[in-house]
Amino acid sequence: MAGKVSPLAPARMADLPPIDGVRLAAAEAGIRYKGRKDVLLAVFDEGARVAGVFTRSRCPSAPVEWCRDRLPGGSARALVVNSGNANAFTGRKGRDAVAETARIAAEAVGCSPDEVFLASTGVIGEPLDPAPFGRVLKGLSGDAAADAYEAASLAIMTTDTFPKRATRRIEIGGTPVTINGIAKGAGMIAPDMATMLAFVFTDAAIATKALQQALAEAVGRTFNAITVDGDTSTSDTLMAFATGRAGNAEIRGGDDLAAFGDALEDLLRELAQMVVRDGEGATKFITVDVAGAVSDASAHRIALSIANSPLVKTAIAGEDANWGRVVMAVGKAGEEADRDRLSIAFGDITVATEGERAPSYDEAEMSAYMKGEAIRIGVDLGLGAGKATVWTCDLTHAYVSINADYRS
Amino acid sequence: MAGKVSPLAPARMADLPPIDGVRLAAAEAGIRYKGRKDVLLAVFDEGARVAGVFTRSRCPSAPVEWCRDRLPGGSARALVVNSGNANAFTGRKGRDAVAETARIAAEAVGCSPDEVFLASTGVIGEPLDPAPFGRVLKGLSGDAAADAYEAASLAIMTTDTFPKRATRRIEIGGTPVTINGIAKGAGMIAPDMATMLAFVFTDAAIATKALQQALAEAVGRTFNAITVDGDTSTSDTLMAFATGRAGNAEIRGGDDLAAFGDALEDLLRELAQMVVRDGEGATKFITVDVAGAVSDASAHRIALSIANSPLVKTAIAGEDANWGRVVMAVGKAGEEADRDRLSIAFGDITVATEGERAPSYDEAEMSAYMKGEAIRIGVDLGLGAGKATVWTCDLTHAYVSINADYRS
Repeated sequence: MAGKVSPLAPARMADLPPIDGVRLAAAEAGIRYKGRKDVLLAVFDEGARVAGVFTRSRCPSAPVEWCRDRLPGGSARALVVNSGNANAFTGRKGRDAVAETARIAAEAVGCSPDEVFLASTGVIGEPLDPAPFGRVLKGLSGDAAADAYEAASLAIMTTDTFPKRATRRIEIGGTPVTINGIAKGAGMIAPDMATMLAFVFTDAAIATKALQQALAEAVGRTFNAITVDGDTSTSDTLMAFATGRAGNAEIRGGDDLAAFGDALEDLLRELAQMVVRDGEGATKFITVDVAGAVSDASAHRIALSIANSPLVKTAIAGEDANWGRVVMAVGKAGEEADRDRLSIAFGDITVATEGERAPSYDEAEMSAYMKGEAIRIGVDLGLGAGKATVWTCDLTHAYVSINADYRS
Repeated sequence: MAGKVSPLAPARMADLPPIDGVRLAAAEAGIRYKGRKDVLLAVFDEGARVAGVFTRSRCPSAPVEWCRDRLPGGSARALVVNSGNANAFTGRKGRDAVAETARIAAEAVGCSPDEVFLASTGVIGEPLDPAPFGRVLKGLSGDAAADAYEAASLAIMTTDTFPKRATRRIEIGGTPVTINGIAKGAGMIAPDMATMLAFVFTDAAIATKALQQALAEAVGRTFNAITVDGDTSTSDTLMAFATGRAGNAEIRGGDDLAAFGDALEDLLRELAQMVVRDGEGATKFITVDVAGAVSDASAHRIALSIANSPLVKTAIAGEDANWGRVVMAVGKAGEEADRDRLSIAFGDITVATEGERAPSYDEAEMSAYMKGEAIRIGVDLGLGAGKATVWTCDLTHAYVSINADYRS
């Protein structure tokens, strides 16, 4: 939050248009931070559909459990997000705080607590006092407006150095439909903080099952295809809310769902890449493209093994096209690989082919390429048609400083 | 190799006694380094048994493949180890270099090439020229002596800051038996270098099958229970050579094998811990004890998830008992866990119990503990009787410098 903006931040951030049926407002509740907004309330008109995907952590936070349990209801009237405290690893107190916050929000909005969805980000292991929600949610419900996305994207930040917003507009059966998204996240978990959070709002009319399907499919190639440090938060949350106010014929499947899904995936990819671009200490934006694997799933695991390798990440921080470390990371992934069919490129420059250094390899050309801000590692396993792309950032002194020195 | 010795280095290093039937010598072959010995030859009297375990990398080096293929022969007359070049990812040239080196060694020692075992450590992807072996192996064979363990342990170093030696003496059926070991390794792979190597020499009379069994069992709780950066080399090699000259009744199983296995495990643990103590940039020696898991294997995977987490390792570098990050690492391991039964301690100080911060937790007491050089993280999952211990080191600015800045 404080400090200078990541050198990889996008040059400009989208202004999000209003979505019919969605109103937002943010307030200073003083949960942990002083002098900044730390609570977001989103209010949905009756009939809004909801879908979500959550952390795979076996120790999820209390709000994650609350949301998972209420998703089958399929109906959302409110979303409450706070920064400063993740309400994770807080035992019974955590569950009680979630229930009490939902009750307060339901009263403020005029709905059932089971129609309230919650997300929290910040310190782990500190009890979250629900009292500040009691002080602000009623007022926020009154103030909520259709054009408050900037305030919303700022209120959910923790160690992020810039807010993250994206928008898409498509037509479904000739009817314009808008999809907005906001996100936060800088490490998989940031200093003492938990969480990657992302929220999508759309006026599309879409069946709950179709919305969940589109979200689940898109997440695999977007938020589940990024890594900063390989550490998975206890609170990762991606939710989508659809008001149906665009007036399109309800999306249930077929071409309409494909079109909606493509736009959603495109939006989520933009937000996910922003999280990498805000990676703690990052100076390089790295794309890992794996092809020729025995399956897409195998390619994905190999790409993650490369993207999570401290030795690969430090090499790129040092502007060193160290393909030996890429071989190492392919080898340790535990996936099918044949050393003598492997080809590796940095950018368009092939460094190794069929298990040996490429005869054409030119070190001077490579040195120039490695000085760039965007680095692509291309790996071809030469075994099959499986492919996957993962995005990550480099591992720098600043990452260690942020995560080791922040107490001093 | 250069630079100052790790602050975690043992105060003194063992002098290894002679092993009847084993002679060693080291020479400067100029493979990569100048002004230091870089080739080790160990010669075994006829009848020596051999066992080995190797990297799980799917892209193993040429010497690893050579050794694996020859282990079933069960007989060893020579071991050749070089530093400076790992002969990994070198394609057909790599396989040819291995065969040629074995031929040269066999001629020097007077045995079959299939009785020659090889290990290489150093840069990946550079062809290894066998010519230097031709210049030194004949001489080394003549010079080899029973008391050359210090030179042997120095010749196999790459970025190690200290040589690694250990010895044990036990009795088998009233007959004294000696086990010597040497090792190298500082990262799972070091700057541009591949490899953890360890070699064990004993005069015990032991059946090949029993030797392999003892080695395979011990490695799980020793070399497979350490991690520096979670990166697995293409060349990891642990081999044991037994000359049988102690004159004990051949160990085939039962109490004798148990006694031998215990001593071997103890020796390997000492060597493995030395590798962690020489971890790149390490300032803290970390023991991760996991108990209460559903199985030992599950406990081992959870312990590794904690030990490999960049956020846990940077927190300890910053002397911060950040148990929220330990919860995160437990959660991401994908193993059975119940957030509300989890207890976490640093040293003997309980920080969290039953899923919440411990009421007794005293931050001042913890701060004092975290300043120490040896840090123990204790995790109790409260689910079963599974337990495991893993050793690692912290993640510091020096790690990034060693791995990102070394070209400058």
